[in-house]
Amino acid sequence: MDPLAALDFSKGNGLVTAIAQDHATGEILMVAHMNEQSLRETLARGEVVYWSRSRGLWHKGEQSGNVQKLKQLRIDCDGDAVLLSVEQIGRAACHTGKRLCFFRFWNGSEWVDDGEQVFDPASVYGSR
Amino acid sequence: MDPLAALDFSKGNGLVTAIAQDHATGEILMVAHMNEQSLRETLARGEVVYWSRSRGLWHKGEQSGNVQKLKQLRIDCDGDAVLLSVEQIGRAACHTGKRLCFFRFWNGSEWVDDGEQVFDPASVYGSR
Repeated sequence: MDPLAALDFSKGNGLVTAIAQDHATGEILMVAHMNEQSLRETLARGEVVYWSRSRGLWHKGEQSGNVQKLKQLRIDCDGDAVLLSVEQIGRAACHTGKRLCFFRFWNGSEWVDDGEQVFDPASVYGSR
Repeated sequence: MDPLAALDFSKGNGLVTAIAQDHATGEILMVAHMNEQSLRETLARGEVVYWSRSRGLWHKGEQSGNVQKLKQLRIDCDGDAVLLSVEQIGRAACHTGKRLCFFRFWNGSEWVDDGEQVFDPASVYGSR
């Protein structure tokens, strides 16, 4: 069976929503998108490959070393979203150097950053 | 401060991705979308209001009773996704009657349904 047969890429113009969850802690690390090719490569490699409007096919962590090993792949009821249970290699999922992307919460009057800064993005990606 | 000032609705044609996570267990219940109005109503009500292409403004659980009480709102680094930490009222988040929407996983050769069926959709929504 082709795993992609259960997916519906039509609603998202060729993309599905991809949520990465830490397999050990249950924390949501990030959310991005996948197209058919990125999902096939994810399954073939056992490491997460997203699709990015700016980067194209994006093997997460290829540059930073912060790859995500796929532990389990789930799809939702509508087939237009996938939930990736991953092992985050390296300490950070977020390009900002935070451990995860959802590092701001609304406290009723402002956004509060409670994220853990685990690397300096300039030292990993160079200045930009 | 207007909480929506930190959000970027432009990349998603007026929508952001909205992920609902059970505040107690860390389980991902569902993923959907929000527009500006739905996010404002969510904050005003303290219950999650999504935006659906088919339903429009969608106060989750209005019909089924399975509302989601908002415990915490987070945004991601790019401002185009929100993570809703919720208390799921009633037993199910999914319109299929499963407890959560990501009830199928890929076992390497087929999709396996390990979801818990907590209601019969026909009895809640009527036949359709």
